Amino acid sequence: MNPDVLQWFIPIAGLLAVAFAILLARNVLSKDTGTKEMMDVSSTINEGAVAFIKRQYLTIGGLALAGSVVIFVIISLLENASVADTSHTGMDIGLRTGGAFLIGAACSMACGIIGMLVSVKANVRVASAARRSLVEAVQVAMRGGAVSGFLVVSLSLLGVWSIFAINGGLAGGDSTKDAPFLIVGYGFGASFVALFAQLGGGIYTKAADVGSDLVGKVEAGIPEDDPRNPAVIADLVGDNVGDCAGRGADLFESTAAENIGAMILGVGVYGLAVKAGWPNPTAWIFFPLVVRAFGLVSTIVAMFFIRGKETENPMNILNRGYWVTTILSALSLVLVTNVMMNTNGANLGDNNIPTWIYFFGCGVVGLATSIAFVYITQYYTAGTFRPVKEIAEASKTGPATNIISGMSVGFETTAVTAITIGIALLASNWLGAHSGLGSVGGVFGTAVATMGMLMTTAYVLAMDTFGPITDNAGGIAEFSRAEAGARDITDRLDAVGNTTKALTKGYAIASASLAAFLLFSAYIDKVNLILGRQIEAGTRTAAQGLMTSVNLADVDVFVAALIAAMLVYFFSSLAIRAVGTTAQAIIVEVRRQFREIPGIMEYKARPDYARVVDITTRAALREMIAPGVVAVGTPIVVGLLLGYQAVAGLLMVGTIAGVLLATVLNNGGGAWDNAKKYIESGHLTDADGNVLGKKTPAHAAAVVGDTVGDPFKDTAGPSLHVLVKLLATITLVMAPLFIR
Amino acid sequence: MNPDVLQWFIPIAGLLAVAFAILLARNVLSKDTGTKEMMDVSSTINEGAVAFIKRQYLTIGGLALAGSVVIFVIISLLENASVADTSHTGMDIGLRTGGAFLIGAACSMACGIIGMLVSVKANVRVASAARRSLVEAVQVAMRGGAVSGFLVVSLSLLGVWSIFAINGGLAGGDSTKDAPFLIVGYGFGASFVALFAQLGGGIYTKAADVGSDLVGKVEAGIPEDDPRNPAVIADLVGDNVGDCAGRGADLFESTAAENIGAMILGVGVYGLAVKAGWPNPTAWIFFPLVVRAFGLVSTIVAMFFIRGKETENPMNILNRGYWVTTILSALSLVLVTNVMMNTNGANLGDNNIPTWIYFFGCGVVGLATSIAFVYITQYYTAGTFRPVKEIAEASKTGPATNIISGMSVGFETTAVTAITIGIALLASNWLGAHSGLGSVGGVFGTAVATMGMLMTTAYVLAMDTFGPITDNAGGIAEFSRAEAGARDITDRLDAVGNTTKALTKGYAIASASLAAFLLFSAYIDKVNLILGRQIEAGTRTAAQGLMTSVNLADVDVFVAALIAAMLVYFFSSLAIRAVGTTAQAIIVEVRRQFREIPGIMEYKARPDYARVVDITTRAALREMIAPGVVAVGTPIVVGLLLGYQAVAGLLMVGTIAGVLLATVLNNGGGAWDNAKKYIESGHLTDADGNVLGKKTPAHAAAVVGDTVGDPFKDTAGPSLHVLVKLLATITLVMAPLFIR
Repeated sequence: MNPDVLQWFIPIAGLLAVAFAILLARNVLSKDTGTKEMMDVSSTINEGAVAFIKRQYLTIGGLALAGSVVIFVIISLLENASVADTSHTGMDIGLRTGGAFLIGAACSMACGIIGMLVSVKANVRVASAARRSLVEAVQVAMRGGAVSGFLVVSLSLLGVWSIFAINGGLAGGDSTKDAPFLIVGYGFGASFVALFAQLGGGIYTKAADVGSDLVGKVEAGIPEDDPRNPAVIADLVGDNVGDCAGRGADLFESTAAENIGAMILGVGVYGLAVKAGWPNPTAWIFFPLVVRAFGLVSTIVAMFFIRGKETENPMNILNRGYWVTTILSALSLVLVTNVMMNTNGANLGDNNIPTWIYFFGCGVVGLATSIAFVYITQYYTAGTFRPVKEIAEASKTGPATNIISGMSVGFETTAVTAITIGIALLASNWLGAHSGLGSVGGVFGTAVATMGMLMTTAYVLAMDTFGPITDNAGGIAEFSRAEAGARDITDRLDAVGNTTKALTKGYAIASASLAAFLLFSAYIDKVNLILGRQIEAGTRTAAQGLMTSVNLADVDVFVAALIAAMLVYFFSSLAIRAVGTTAQAIIVEVRRQFREIPGIMEYKARPDYARVVDITTRAALREMIAPGVVAVGTPIVVGLLLGYQAVAGLLMVGTIAGVLLATVLNNGGGAWDNAKKYIESGHLTDADGNVLGKKTPAHAAAVVGDTVGDPFKDTAGPSLHVLVKLLATITLVMAPLFIR
Repeated sequence: MNPDVLQWFIPIAGLLAVAFAILLARNVLSKDTGTKEMMDVSSTINEGAVAFIKRQYLTIGGLALAGSVVIFVIISLLENASVADTSHTGMDIGLRTGGAFLIGAACSMACGIIGMLVSVKANVRVASAARRSLVEAVQVAMRGGAVSGFLVVSLSLLGVWSIFAINGGLAGGDSTKDAPFLIVGYGFGASFVALFAQLGGGIYTKAADVGSDLVGKVEAGIPEDDPRNPAVIADLVGDNVGDCAGRGADLFESTAAENIGAMILGVGVYGLAVKAGWPNPTAWIFFPLVVRAFGLVSTIVAMFFIRGKETENPMNILNRGYWVTTILSALSLVLVTNVMMNTNGANLGDNNIPTWIYFFGCGVVGLATSIAFVYITQYYTAGTFRPVKEIAEASKTGPATNIISGMSVGFETTAVTAITIGIALLASNWLGAHSGLGSVGGVFGTAVATMGMLMTTAYVLAMDTFGPITDNAGGIAEFSRAEAGARDITDRLDAVGNTTKALTKGYAIASASLAAFLLFSAYIDKVNLILGRQIEAGTRTAAQGLMTSVNLADVDVFVAALIAAMLVYFFSSLAIRAVGTTAQAIIVEVRRQFREIPGIMEYKARPDYARVVDITTRAALREMIAPGVVAVGTPIVVGLLLGYQAVAGLLMVGTIAGVLLATVLNNGGGAWDNAKKYIESGHLTDADGNVLGKKTPAHAAAVVGDTVGDPFKDTAGPSLHVLVKLLATITLVMAPLFIR
């Protein structure tokens, strides 16, 4: 088969996925919207969500616009002929990079907005469907989630492809070779938006959660999601803006940035292929895009397998689709690697095995890593295994031992995470290194593994968005006092949703860490292109040489690494504190309403939900600025002070530290959450076999752990994923700034 | 002056300090031992402490013996002529290294035992003195602490010097040059013992603390330190075995290992000095030992300045001595650098400033870093500043917000810590690099800074041991129902003791991170010596070359770095969990005694204190094995699998990750502790200005935070210091194992 056929499959699959997303959205919207009470709550949630998203994206849009101007100016001034990594220089490259940044930012924002709008519409329809059938409710929720999933992945694919085309990527030859370097701005734009979307959404959702609980449950003694609590709508809105829009932006940028990184590495193989006279040198550059196109199609097929029995565990229904996606992805990998990595028999890897088979192996390593993380996360956060039980047991002796035990579990989760990532990196690197591509093979192997892992992104993201949709559906059922059967079903779906949300975080972390290695390499490639030009131009002596290593024994690199490891703690500290500050603002307002609006407690007066939403919105957006600035500013300052090699150290150690701290925060938080649920479902007993359920001291202790875990797992943890990738894209774009 | 004079000052100062320690001990023992009740408790504590120490050091001694045999075998087999870094090979070097290991282990154990015995004797005398005079109580406590301080530092100095002498270090020439490499086993032995001493002591002290609180205060409703609680003696014993013996072992190994590392770097300068014909080449190797000798003498002088007024804040009295030590150390640095770094005017640094002045600057950087950490720790853990107040405020809304706020403060403390360490490293490296020593200058500069910092160790350690002594004195006063005036004074001293304990941890971390850099360099030097010999011997080609960098972009190094960052979390998880498991054993036993021994609650029957002490001892010693094995095993496994360059990556990133996580745990725990004290002293008020003190929900919330912080700051955090240094010494000794 001619690789050109597969290359044209990129836009086709992208458009197909968009069309499919539209179909799914129409299907979801065609479902009935339930009782009048349900519609009422739903429209109030919708209102609040739209208000937040509008103001948030106006703020982020403004920041992105300012960012693009700054980038344009810096790049235009810096990347003159003696520094540029391609033939484009000065204003030309400045415009290209700034423009790519803006387009990346815009696509990311579009995904967040559309996905969230659909999921807000889906939740009431899930609540309504739950009155009739479990399977129908699962399908509506999953289709609503899949709208996000498909949009995020297809827009990222189409975006990268279009901007690649605009920059001459389809022209072949040197033009194709240069194009990947011209589009890094796109990834930076996406991560810039993702940072603020995740921070703002994460702060909003957890501040509303913590604030409404503290002032409602604790102070006023009314139940969770009770309509008398003025903060309850803000809490329901929060699920949508945090989990849904935030994680969408997170994975949008993963797929974009990692794709671009992989294409840059493809350029290295392209050079090799041209020299060796292999049939399709540019195919190595297109490969990452083609792989993702096939991932999208596999996911479309998988959507038709989301069916099952009413009595079945809903998790099984979702798992069925995941396995279909995985298996189809693996099969299509055979086709893609065979066609695109054709060396015409001119080149063989070790033991005379063809090159493409080694890389097929790398892709499988990526898919396997994804599966491993799904099960690791389940082990650490689901109530059926040792860790959650241990925390529940510790709750018997009070909140202190609950917290100690949860921290200990959170710390412990790093072990198997790090070992799995380590094995995946070593294995894919080994396969690549023995594929017959020489020194570039190893790193390219890790790139292929990352691409393999990302094939299932659309499906994973659909499962993730399933979480907030069912969570909200449960809230709506509770709030509108729906019949018990419906609430039973939404409760079951909500529990599954908690698991899928946790899985996605594990997936996001694993992909970030696999990708890290290829983004480092892209950075080093870019720096060396620039250094090479400077040596040619005579502004740098040959003796000064290229960047051949990131030497930790160099004091500048070591200090940068120290700063990087500190950055992830400091950034998390700011994010966690922001939740506290914002929650405080909510508490003050709710207390005021209880005091000044008589009759709320007797259901006689309606609380002013909108005002709480508004206050939360403003506080969350204000509080996201400080951590955002720290994240963007630190790599630039370190780069200016300590130079390009130190930045590489910052990038690498920052990735390691960020991935592990995020693991601690996400899994610790998830385990606390489910330890509480474990006790609530009556699984904990005392020495005499009596059940210790709700309203016991053990349950109260578990609630403390759950509350502590909230900002860990839903604000700081997910924001760290984005931080890690932002470090990579920012250094890639700003590299010329760090070279003196 | 002839440097030989200063060299002979090493054993003289060491012996002087030992003599002074004996004098201090006699002085303390000559004080009266208070009332009969006081003597009773004291002797019970003494009994328990001796029982624990005996069993603990028997276990550790056994482990050390086994360790030395393993080392002897491995080194004898590996370091044959083609691999060895000196002219000693095979059994010869195996015996030297294994022997040095045993001596290091023995010295460390001796320090721990003697220091703890004296401090156990001192506490009752402090309690008795507190009935008369604050200043006298401070003096007795500080002298008791200083026995530990002087013994630890002087034994480490004499130990290093003697073993250096045994290995031909005093013979001059090549013999002196080789000796530093032969004594690394001493540092390894010291860190091996320190690891288990800190782990065992840390688990014991916090398990007893948490266990006795949970079963006494929470379940039975009796006050802290109440004689009816069967676990109370175990709790009092814990202060001595954890804070006192543990931290002593920690700093013993800091001074030993960092000294040896600095001497190895001195060998590099020695080579330079011989070539350039400077007057005293070996002085560069002796320099680290001489600096410490002067630090000891400065501390002896400072002991005479520990005096003040009865009405004074006791912290001021201690600070007076600290400043005297620091100033005298700075002055003696002028002398030592001037005499020992004499280049006969043949060599000048940049701007024609003599070399020694640059290194004097490095020493001052070290002293300044020590001062900076004293104030940083105070800011984050003392009640007069924002962080502790913030946690106290957050306690108003319950334990969850207290924990969230404390974690956020803990994370935040990494920022100023990392920046301070970064500045110290960059500054001392810059000074060294411009001193005219060429490429070795920079690293040697960081070594001199470390040595400068360690000059005050004896004093800092005396202040640290002051903590558990006064803590115990308070417990004895409470337990023996001493008059109120005495308890007032012991309470004031106890508060100061909390601060000094926190300071020491900051100091230990800072010195570990400064030292890390020089230990890395020592490792690289050692590897290169071996590689060089292999190239000479023809077992390695010249093309394979020496180790010129620790390249993070290499996948093996990156994976090792990931494992290292994970190790610090996993190790902490094990340590924290061990506290929980041990506390559980205590709770079960205390419940049994309450049930089976009638009359305890009515003061009619005496609880079986000894049994609780015994159970705690056995559980703590059992639980220290798993984290200990993980700590020792991980670097060896990684080295065997991934090689010597990867181990360097493990060492460096492990140091960064360990230092920062220890900072989080130590300072977070300290801040929680003092937030509770802040509330107890009545500083927290509600919106209407009413004091929220003991027995309020805010106080209960703060108690939760304090309990959570206990295993963080007293078990996991301090054990991480030791882990970081163990990584350095183990890789230094085992280097030949990792070279293939």
